[in-house]
Amino acid sequence: MRPIDALVNALPEGRVLTDPDVIDSYARDRTFLEPGKPLGAVLATSRDDVVTTLKWATEHRVPVVPRGGGTGLAGAATAGDGSVILSVARMTAIKELSPADEIAVVEPGVITADLDRAAREHGLMYAPDPSSYEISTIGGNLATNAGGLRCVKYGVTRDSALGLEVVLADGRILETGRRTMKGVTGYDLTGLFVGSEGTLGVITSATVRLRRAPDKPPATFAAEFGSLRDAGAAVSAIMAAGCQPSLMELLDRATLEAIDDWRNIGLETSTIAMLIGQSDASDSESVVKRMEQLCVDNGASFVAVSSSPQETEELIGLRRMAYDAKERMGACLVEDVCVPRSVLPDMIMAIEAAAVRHGVKIATVAHAGDGNLHPVFIFEHGMAEPPPEVWAAADEVFKHALGLGGTLTGEHGVGLLKRRWLGLEFGPVAQEMQQGIKAVFDPLGLLNPGKAI
Amino acid sequence: MRPIDALVNALPEGRVLTDPDVIDSYARDRTFLEPGKPLGAVLATSRDDVVTTLKWATEHRVPVVPRGGGTGLAGAATAGDGSVILSVARMTAIKELSPADEIAVVEPGVITADLDRAAREHGLMYAPDPSSYEISTIGGNLATNAGGLRCVKYGVTRDSALGLEVVLADGRILETGRRTMKGVTGYDLTGLFVGSEGTLGVITSATVRLRRAPDKPPATFAAEFGSLRDAGAAVSAIMAAGCQPSLMELLDRATLEAIDDWRNIGLETSTIAMLIGQSDASDSESVVKRMEQLCVDNGASFVAVSSSPQETEELIGLRRMAYDAKERMGACLVEDVCVPRSVLPDMIMAIEAAAVRHGVKIATVAHAGDGNLHPVFIFEHGMAEPPPEVWAAADEVFKHALGLGGTLTGEHGVGLLKRRWLGLEFGPVAQEMQQGIKAVFDPLGLLNPGKAI
Repeated sequence: MRPIDALVNALPEGRVLTDPDVIDSYARDRTFLEPGKPLGAVLATSRDDVVTTLKWATEHRVPVVPRGGGTGLAGAATAGDGSVILSVARMTAIKELSPADEIAVVEPGVITADLDRAAREHGLMYAPDPSSYEISTIGGNLATNAGGLRCVKYGVTRDSALGLEVVLADGRILETGRRTMKGVTGYDLTGLFVGSEGTLGVITSATVRLRRAPDKPPATFAAEFGSLRDAGAAVSAIMAAGCQPSLMELLDRATLEAIDDWRNIGLETSTIAMLIGQSDASDSESVVKRMEQLCVDNGASFVAVSSSPQETEELIGLRRMAYDAKERMGACLVEDVCVPRSVLPDMIMAIEAAAVRHGVKIATVAHAGDGNLHPVFIFEHGMAEPPPEVWAAADEVFKHALGLGGTLTGEHGVGLLKRRWLGLEFGPVAQEMQQGIKAVFDPLGLLNPGKAI
Repeated sequence: MRPIDALVNALPEGRVLTDPDVIDSYARDRTFLEPGKPLGAVLATSRDDVVTTLKWATEHRVPVVPRGGGTGLAGAATAGDGSVILSVARMTAIKELSPADEIAVVEPGVITADLDRAAREHGLMYAPDPSSYEISTIGGNLATNAGGLRCVKYGVTRDSALGLEVVLADGRILETGRRTMKGVTGYDLTGLFVGSEGTLGVITSATVRLRRAPDKPPATFAAEFGSLRDAGAAVSAIMAAGCQPSLMELLDRATLEAIDDWRNIGLETSTIAMLIGQSDASDSESVVKRMEQLCVDNGASFVAVSSSPQETEELIGLRRMAYDAKERMGACLVEDVCVPRSVLPDMIMAIEAAAVRHGVKIATVAHAGDGNLHPVFIFEHGMAEPPPEVWAAADEVFKHALGLGGTLTGEHGVGLLKRRWLGLEFGPVAQEMQQGIKAVFDPLGLLNPGKAI
C-alpha cells in the first residue's frame, strides 16, 4: 500500500484528494510560483483530521504543507514534490463569540471578513483586515501575522491573538496563551506561532480579541500631491499631530496610472502621489479636517473629503483596486518592505530609482502610517519566473530598505520568495536560534519545510 | 584562584561586589523571599561587561541571575547559592529618541518613568507604567512583560517592544526584531524574550515604541459602590460603551480600610468598592461624564469627578497608596491573577470567600478594565515565609481563577513564587516545549535557573 492510501484509509471518506489536476489548485498561493507534485491534499473538517494527518505524516516521514485560503503573497503555501497539503479551509466554525469579554474562539478556516461581520452584530469588530480579507482565513492570517489597512490604528494579527490550539508534527496537542487580555505565564508561545507560516505546528483553534466597533461610518479624505516628498511629509505631520488615522494609504504615480488605464479616474498629469486617509474616532469629521489641512500645509494640490458612505466606498475602492489594476498589466511580484516612517519618501524614491536603473515596471502602494510599502514588480504574463532584471531590482529594494533600518517583510511573510535575503536581515546567531526552535517543535522537519526561516 | 576572582580580574575595576552584606541587597526583589549566598554581584555598565560575565559564567558553569531595579513581585530576581548576580541598573543611556519614527533605543537600566519623561519633551510618551515605574527599569519591565495602569488602553510592555539586543549565555550577541512598526521576518524572538524573566538571555539594548502623549491632562472620576457586583457591572458597561478608559482601577473594602486606617479618607461604612477611572481622549470630559452616568446607572452611591489636576492626583494617589497601606499592616504576598473581564466580580467574591474560609487577610485591587486582580495576602511582619493558611488561600484563588478561564499571572510573572502552580495552567506538552526552547538558548541552564518555566 502506498503511504497516501494509508492516509485515505485513516480519514473519513472524501477527506483526501489525490487527483493531480485537482490537487494542483491546492498547491498554490497567490504568487507566480509553480508548485511541485504533492501526493495528495487533505481537506480537514476537524482537529481529529489534523491529528490523523500529522501522525500519518510522522510515521511515513512525509512533509506537510498547511494552508488556509491560499491568498498568501510569499509562497508559504506553495506545495513541493512528495508533500501532503493540509487544508483547514473547511474548519469554519465560530465556536464562541463573547461580547462581554470581547473575544471569539474560532476554527482556522473562518473567513476573516466573516468573523468581522459576526462581531459587528454585537457592536464589535475583528480589527485585522488584510486586503484579501473576504477570502483569507484566520488560520492563514495567524500563520503570516497578516496586517491590513486598519492596522495603522489597531495593530497586526499578533495584536489580536490571545491563545491557540495547535497540533504538533507528531500529532500531540499544544495549547498556548489564554482567554484573558493580559497574561505572562511562561514563554509567549502564542506569539511564536503567529507568523511562523505553519513550520512549527498546525493551528486548529484560535482565541482572538475583538474590539468595539466605531458607532458610525468613518470619515475619509483623498489628497493629491505633486511630489512623493510632500506626500511623505503630510503623513509624518498627520501622525505627529496625533490624528490616529484608522487608515493611511499612499499610492504612487505608477499605481495611479494603472488604475487610470483601467477605470479612467481622470488622473492629472501633475499628480505624483495620492494619500487616502480615514478616521473612525468619535470626532472623525474634525480629525479629517485637521488631516486635510495638514495635507494642504504640506503642498497637496487637491484634497477631497468624502461626504457620504458611497463616496467613501469610491475612495477606498481606488486603493482596493490597485492590485487588480496591476495584474491586468502583467504578472506581479508583490513585495512588502517596511521602513521607519520618517524615511518612507526616501524608500519610495529608491524604488523608483531601481525601476529606472533596471528597466523594470514597479508600482507602489504603501500603508504609509506604518512605513509599510508594497512595491509591485510587473513582468510579462506567462513567464514562469520573474526575469533577472526584476530580481536585480528587488534585491536593490530589499538592501535599501535594510539600509534604512527597515525589514524585508512587514506583513506578507517570508515564505519561499524572501528566503534568499534572510541572511541580510538576520545574523547567524538569530538563524541558529530559529533553527533550534524549529527542531524543538518539529524535530523531523516535516512541517512546511523550506519556508519562513 | 577562585572563579569569582577570575571574574573580578576580567572586568574593569569596581564592577564586581563580593562583600556578602552588600551583595545581599542585590539578591532580593520586592517579595519576602530570602535569597541564598551568591558569589558576587556584577554592576555592568556596558554590553562588554555583560558579555565578559556570561562568558565567564559559561566557562565556570556558574548560574547568573540578571536584575534591573529589583522591583519584581514574583521572585524572578531572587539570587540563589553560588550564583552571580548581573545587574544592568547602571546601563542607563537613552541612546536614541526619534520623534519622527516614535521610537527610542535604550539600555536596560533606564528607569521606566525617565524614558516616559524624556519622550514627553517631544510630545510623546512611553506607555507601560507599572506601579513601580519611578524605580523599575525597562530591562526588568521587558523581562517580566510588565503591565500597569495605562495598559487597559495602551497594552503591556510587549506591545511597546520592537527589537532587542540580547547577550546569550555563551556570550554571543543576538539581535531580534526591528525598528519598524510592523515586521514578520522569521520567528518572533522579541516576543519570546519579553516575559522570559532572564532565563533565555540578558537584554542589553531595546528598541521601544513611543506613542503620542495626550495634549492635555486626563479627566478622572472615582465612584463608590455598595457591592462588588455593582462595581463590576459598571466596569462592564463602561467597556461595552466603548469609553476606552486610559485607567480603570477597582479597590475592594479591605484595601479601602487599609488606606483609611493610614490616611483617614473618611470611608463610609456602606462603601464596599471604589472604582477610579480616567480618560485621556480629546473629548475626555464628555467621556468621563458618560462613565459617571454608567456608574450611577449601575448603583454607585457616590461619584466624584475631578475638577483640577490636583484633585486628580489625589484620586490616583488613593490607588497608588494601596500597596504601601497594606505593607503597614504586615508582610505581603502580592498575587496577580487575570480573568476574563465579565467574571471579575465572581473572582473578587471568590477571593473574599477564600479569605474568610482560611482566616486570612486579603485586600484586593484590580486593573478592572483588563480583568487583572492583585489580591494581597497580608501576614505577620517578620515571618520568613507566608503561613500555611495563606498558601492554602492562595491555592484556592489560583484554582478559582483558572476555573474561570483565567491565568495565574497577568503582569508580574512566574518567578519563583508561582512555579508550583504552573502545571495547572500548562499541559505537559507546553511545559516540554518551553523546556526545549530554554535549552536552545541556554543549553547549560545557567541563566536564572528555577525561574519562569
